[in-house]
Amino acid sequence: MNIEVAEVRQTLEWLSSISDETGPGTTRLLYSPSWLTAQKALKEKFESLGMECRFDAVGNLFGTLVGSESPERKIATGSHVDTVVRGGKLDGQLGIFGGYLAVKHLLETCGRPKKSLEIISMAEEEGSRFPYVFWGSKNIFGLARPEDVTHLKDGQGVGFVDAMRGCGFDFGDGKVKDDLDAFIELHIEQGNFLEEENVTVGVVNSIVGQKRYNITLRGEANHAGTTLMRYRKDTVECLSRIVVHCLDKAKAAGDPLVLTFGKVVPKPNTVNVVPGETLFTMDCRHTDAAFLQAFTAELEADMKAIAAKAGIDIEIDNWMNEKPVSMDANVVSIIERVCRARQLNYKVMHSGAGHDSQIFAPRVPTGMIFVPSIKGISHNPAEDTKLEDLCEGIKALAYTLHELAY
Amino acid sequence: MNIEVAEVRQTLEWLSSISDETGPGTTRLLYSPSWLTAQKALKEKFESLGMECRFDAVGNLFGTLVGSESPERKIATGSHVDTVVRGGKLDGQLGIFGGYLAVKHLLETCGRPKKSLEIISMAEEEGSRFPYVFWGSKNIFGLARPEDVTHLKDGQGVGFVDAMRGCGFDFGDGKVKDDLDAFIELHIEQGNFLEEENVTVGVVNSIVGQKRYNITLRGEANHAGTTLMRYRKDTVECLSRIVVHCLDKAKAAGDPLVLTFGKVVPKPNTVNVVPGETLFTMDCRHTDAAFLQAFTAELEADMKAIAAKAGIDIEIDNWMNEKPVSMDANVVSIIERVCRARQLNYKVMHSGAGHDSQIFAPRVPTGMIFVPSIKGISHNPAEDTKLEDLCEGIKALAYTLHELAY
Repeated sequence: MNIEVAEVRQTLEWLSSISDETGPGTTRLLYSPSWLTAQKALKEKFESLGMECRFDAVGNLFGTLVGSESPERKIATGSHVDTVVRGGKLDGQLGIFGGYLAVKHLLETCGRPKKSLEIISMAEEEGSRFPYVFWGSKNIFGLARPEDVTHLKDGQGVGFVDAMRGCGFDFGDGKVKDDLDAFIELHIEQGNFLEEENVTVGVVNSIVGQKRYNITLRGEANHAGTTLMRYRKDTVECLSRIVVHCLDKAKAAGDPLVLTFGKVVPKPNTVNVVPGETLFTMDCRHTDAAFLQAFTAELEADMKAIAAKAGIDIEIDNWMNEKPVSMDANVVSIIERVCRARQLNYKVMHSGAGHDSQIFAPRVPTGMIFVPSIKGISHNPAEDTKLEDLCEGIKALAYTLHELAY
Repeated sequence: MNIEVAEVRQTLEWLSSISDETGPGTTRLLYSPSWLTAQKALKEKFESLGMECRFDAVGNLFGTLVGSESPERKIATGSHVDTVVRGGKLDGQLGIFGGYLAVKHLLETCGRPKKSLEIISMAEEEGSRFPYVFWGSKNIFGLARPEDVTHLKDGQGVGFVDAMRGCGFDFGDGKVKDDLDAFIELHIEQGNFLEEENVTVGVVNSIVGQKRYNITLRGEANHAGTTLMRYRKDTVECLSRIVVHCLDKAKAAGDPLVLTFGKVVPKPNTVNVVPGETLFTMDCRHTDAAFLQAFTAELEADMKAIAAKAGIDIEIDNWMNEKPVSMDANVVSIIERVCRARQLNYKVMHSGAGHDSQIFAPRVPTGMIFVPSIKGISHNPAEDTKLEDLCEGIKALAYTLHELAY
């Protein structure tokens, strides 16, 4: 199979140019004009290969290359067609145009598959226009309820349902798609692991679980000049002791644990007042549910002890608790085997970010293939991957689909 | 001398009720209607004791009880008549009405002094209406220049000079007041040292020097899920290591050193991004100039080393560097002697905040007397001191003035 840089570049530029704004980057929000244009253009593209295409009720696009022996069973690939505002040209849509190129080359070189091959261009994953994520994939498995979105409005005050109906779509009947034998998603890594390790293909074995917290420290606001150190209840000091302690513990625990204190808001946040209150966030991820649970429980206890020692009240609010999701072991080993056979430079790794595959994985044997992100940059117009690496990723996908469908 | 709670309460309520707003707290901004009302009312009050009164060009009020032997030499007391917005009823004006009560009782019980006694109601100290501090005391010693304030406007866009002229005042001739043999300022502590130590009178021996910094850390913003711990340049982590290290060092150095990290602003300041940039402030104070200099130099070097180790750029901007100011040793020992002789419960201490006395001290033998602030609260309508403690403070002032002028 000879997937050329020129063809990849052309297909990538064609799809990423369909944007709500004139750059920088690609902006294609759910149910926006460019979103509809992209879905319709993809349908034509798929049909040009002789694929049978259909939209479901909410606007997920399915293109099927009908199999010769078991056409009712499907091997699917794809990803989401929506982007964040001023996003990159690869997040989501690589899985769609990469799937298209893989299927195109398989058809050209190997002819019709035994099982059907399906490309799914999913309506939505990012939650960028409306505060709801995985609208596309959740609808495929009857997991989204109308009442989850009927009250949602975008930044301009447009309602979710109005936007959906404006594109000619509507709520589905909740039926669960049950014709898939496997789902493989090609995606950019959005991190710098592959780049740092000098590897071209990531074979994803799991998607991390995530716990997110809002934590509030309440001490005492005091004059920065007249309050001796021993009389202070300084919440920035307390925050700092918590951060140092928890990050040291996280580093000692090692990969794949990641721990982030991304937001810090002291009050009154001024140079000459000992900060009497500080709000901060904690984001902790790991691929092992039990480990994540035990580790964060330990951090919670440690934070309470550090605060108590300083005479500071602490309020810990764990507002997100998503379990890790494992990819299918058989699918993972098939992708690995394919990579070895074709001498692709690969590593097995986990995903630190969420993906459509986490909705598929509990219901369908699922795997993911990553390509490197230059400097790990994503959700940004500067998001990029070397064209040669994109070719390698698409090849890994094509060979895997071949293994599963031919 | 019998200074009664009832009289103190009445005088305090009378003066603090002259406010630009109807509470809570007292608001009396420079050259505002209530500011002018207060200065004129104080002039009448002083005159009712037989004092000679005059305003200088910028609106500082001087009330003189003429001495019987060396009337041309003066022992002065006083403080500033302006307040912060919604300030307390004691900051500044305690030094004026307390001075008035001290002089009144000295006159009643001891008659006319040998040297003249002078009460100064200073125009401005807080910098609350216009961003300029010590306008009153600086003008007394020819230290303020017209070009420092001609461009200043208040929050409503009113110019400094227009506000000044609207009250009937104007720039002075820059002459330096040279008739003072001593200046004693009575003030609330604005901290909780006296309260915690169960002491009623603070004899101030120095006002701290202050250094203030803006510090910027520049690392790398990264995805909180996909960036392994070892690839991060996390500026909140770096900030936290700096804060813990520096505060531990400050506590080890002991009183009177105080160190505050009051402001922290990470970017982008969101739960799921490793913060790529963090701005924070550092405020460090000590009574010994050489120690303050050496200690902050050490902190600067330590911060640079901590940042360098983390691969993070650091930019350190020291935008304020005020030297400590010593009170006059002879005046301090006179106040101490008076407190011992009258069995006042006192301690020698430093001031962690700035005061008019720091402008006087390099030019006139100067001392300060503190009374406790309940819970250390100040610049707040809840600012308060027990009436009994106010009486003790006014007594300490009166006996000191007696020692110096009779």
